Amino acid sequence: MTAAPAPFTRDDYAARMARVAADARTAGLDGVLVTPGPDLVWLTGYRPTAITERLTLLAVGADREPTLVVPALERPDAEAAAGTGATTLVDWSDGADPYAAAAALLRDGARYAVSDSAWALHLLGLQAALPGAAFHAVTDRLPMLRAVKDADELARLAAAGAAADAAYAEILGVRFAGRRETDVAHDLAELLRAHGHEQVDFTVVGSGPNGANPHHEAGDRIMRDGDCVVLDFGGLLAGYGSDTSRTVSVGEPSAEVREVHDVVRLAQRAGVDAVRPGVACQDVDRAARAVIEDAGYGERFIHRTGHGIGVTTHEPPYVVAGEELPLVPGMCFSVEPGVYLPGRFGVRIEDIVTVTADGVRRLNTSPRDLRVVS
Amino acid sequence: MTAAPAPFTRDDYAARMARVAADARTAGLDGVLVTPGPDLVWLTGYRPTAITERLTLLAVGADREPTLVVPALERPDAEAAAGTGATTLVDWSDGADPYAAAAALLRDGARYAVSDSAWALHLLGLQAALPGAAFHAVTDRLPMLRAVKDADELARLAAAGAAADAAYAEILGVRFAGRRETDVAHDLAELLRAHGHEQVDFTVVGSGPNGANPHHEAGDRIMRDGDCVVLDFGGLLAGYGSDTSRTVSVGEPSAEVREVHDVVRLAQRAGVDAVRPGVACQDVDRAARAVIEDAGYGERFIHRTGHGIGVTTHEPPYVVAGEELPLVPGMCFSVEPGVYLPGRFGVRIEDIVTVTADGVRRLNTSPRDLRVVS
Repeated sequence: MTAAPAPFTRDDYAARMARVAADARTAGLDGVLVTPGPDLVWLTGYRPTAITERLTLLAVGADREPTLVVPALERPDAEAAAGTGATTLVDWSDGADPYAAAAALLRDGARYAVSDSAWALHLLGLQAALPGAAFHAVTDRLPMLRAVKDADELARLAAAGAAADAAYAEILGVRFAGRRETDVAHDLAELLRAHGHEQVDFTVVGSGPNGANPHHEAGDRIMRDGDCVVLDFGGLLAGYGSDTSRTVSVGEPSAEVREVHDVVRLAQRAGVDAVRPGVACQDVDRAARAVIEDAGYGERFIHRTGHGIGVTTHEPPYVVAGEELPLVPGMCFSVEPGVYLPGRFGVRIEDIVTVTADGVRRLNTSPRDLRVVS
Repeated sequence: MTAAPAPFTRDDYAARMARVAADARTAGLDGVLVTPGPDLVWLTGYRPTAITERLTLLAVGADREPTLVVPALERPDAEAAAGTGATTLVDWSDGADPYAAAAALLRDGARYAVSDSAWALHLLGLQAALPGAAFHAVTDRLPMLRAVKDADELARLAAAGAAADAAYAEILGVRFAGRRETDVAHDLAELLRAHGHEQVDFTVVGSGPNGANPHHEAGDRIMRDGDCVVLDFGGLLAGYGSDTSRTVSVGEPSAEVREVHDVVRLAQRAGVDAVRPGVACQDVDRAARAVIEDAGYGERFIHRTGHGIGVTTHEPPYVVAGEELPLVPGMCFSVEPGVYLPGRFGVRIEDIVTVTADGVRRLNTSPRDLRVVS
C-alpha cells in the first residue's frame, strides 16, 4: 500500500460550509440543518461515537456563521474534529431542551432543509419549536454538492479502489472449497485492512443459492466445487469508500454460469460505456439493463444499477429508472448489474467509476472475466 | 459460558405487535409507524443489513393487521425474520414511490406515532403524502413498552450481564502497562465474544487524561504505572445488551484516585439503592449525584446517571434530571455515575439493574472496589 492521503484541514471544511451556505441562498432556503451522518462528516470531519436521541445539529445559514449544537458531554469529541474549528459551538446539558437551544439560533417562518437521515424525533421537535418554519428534505441540495468530488476527494476514492483491487487479487489465491462463506468474508476483511482500509463496511460472500439474494452477507454455508460465488466488499480508506463486486467459480463453472456471467459482464461494460457528462443517471441504468433484458434475464435483475460513493459507501447519485439527474464531471458511483436465479446462483459485477470532462474513468481495474478459484 | 437462550418465535412477536396496537388505541392513535431500528427488532426480529434512504415501514394499527412495507430486493431478508410471518408484506421496487405505497395503507386525517429514529426524509415524504395526518414521536409509547422487560427478556439481559462480568474478571489479569489502550480494548472485545456475545458495541479504555472525556473510546496512548483507567464495554448476547464500567489503577493508585473512586463507588451504590417501583427516574439520578456533590465534585459529574438497555445498549428509560417517569418492575437500565478531572483522569462505575416487585436486582456483580492491574 502507498501512504494514505493527508487529512482535510479546517480551511477545507470552512470552504465546504461556505459552498453550502451559498447553495442554500440559491435555493431560496434560509439555512441547512445537518445532523450526524455523512453530511456532517463531509462538512466538519465530525463523526460522533453514536447517533442517539441526543440532538447534535449544525446550522449553516445564508446570513450567519455556521453553528454546531452539541450535547455538553460530547463537546470534547466535537472540538477534536478538524472542521468544527470553523463553527461556533453551543452545548446543551442533559435535562435541558435541545430544541429550544436550536430554535434560538433559527427563525420561525423561515425555510430550512434538513439532513435526510435526521431523526424524526428531532424534526418533530424542531417543527414544534418553530411552528411557522417550513422544513424540506435536503436530498437535492447538500448531498448533490457532496456527489461532485474535487481532485483531493478523487485521489482518496482512487486509493480506496486500488486497495480493493489488491484485496481481490489476493482473495483469488485463497481456498474456497470446504470453507464457510464467513471464513472467506473474514479473509476479505483482513485483506482490505492490510491494504489500508481503516474501516470495513461489508464483505459479502454469497455462494450457490445464497448468491441469488443480493442482500445476503455471509453465512455458515460450506462452499464446494461447482459453486458460483458473489463477492461484494468495501469500506473506508482515508475517509473515502470502496465498493467492488466480482463473481467467481469454485472449480469449473457450468455452461449456464458462464453464459450468465457473460451477460452481466457485457451489461456492466454497457453501463460504464454510457457514462459521460450530461447523460441522465437513468440512462446508465437503462444501458446496462438493456443487455440483460435482451438476453432474456430482465426479470432477474432486481435492483438498480448503482449508487454514489464518497464519505460513505452508499449515497447519491442513484443510478436507477426515473432518476433524470444529469451526470457531472466528478460524480463517483457504482455500476453493478446482476442476475439472480432464485434457489440456484447469482452473478454481480461492480466497479466504481467517475465522470470525467468527456467520459468516464474506472476506479477499479480488477479483471472482470470469470475467474476460477479452488 | 452457558447455552444461549432460545430465539423468540413468530407468536412472541405477534403478541408484542398486538400490545402495541392496543396501546395505540389507548393513546388515541390510529397507528404506529415503525422504521428499522430497535423498535422494529423488538416487534419482528428484523434488522435490515443497512438503514438507508429506501423506505422500510411497519404499520401497526388499531384497526388492521400489521403490514410491513419493504424494498423489493430486501424482501427475502425480511421474510427470514421470525416476526415478519405475523405481518402482511408489501414490497416496492426501485423507481416506484414508496410514500404512495405506504400512504395507501394509511388514512389521511389520522394520527400516527412514528419511530424516533425514522429518517426525516421518510417523515417528510409521509407528511407530504398524507397532508391531513398528524405525526408524533413515539417516544412515550412503544419504547416505554419495550422498556419493561418480561421474564424471557430478563433472562437474556442477565446472561449478557454475567458474560460481561466474566470478561471483566479476565481483563484484570492482562497486562496494561506498556500497552496501548486499543490493545486492551481488543482484549475486551475478544473476551466478550468468548463469553457469548454475538456483537461487541463498544470497548472504552480511557487511561489517564483520556479517562476524563466520558466519550473517549480507545486510542494509541501507551498506559503506564500510576494511570487510572476507565473501562466501559458492552454488546449483544442472544439479542440483548450488556454495558458495564469499572475503573482500575495500573500499579498503586494515588491518594486522590482512591478518594475519587470511593466517592463514585458510594454514589453508584446510592443510585442503585434508590431504585424501586414508583420512584421517578430523576430521583435515582439525584441520589447518585447528591453523594458526588456532597464530596465537592458535583461539577465534575457531567452526564446523566443512566440509560435503559434491551435490544440495544442505549434506550429509554433515561435516568436524568427532569425525567419524572416512575420506575416499573421489569425496567432495566444502567446506573453509572462518574467524576471527570480534565487533563488528569476520570472514574466511572456502572452496573445494569432491573426493578423488581419491591426493589432492585443488579445484573452485574463484578466487584466494585478499586482493583490494581499490572
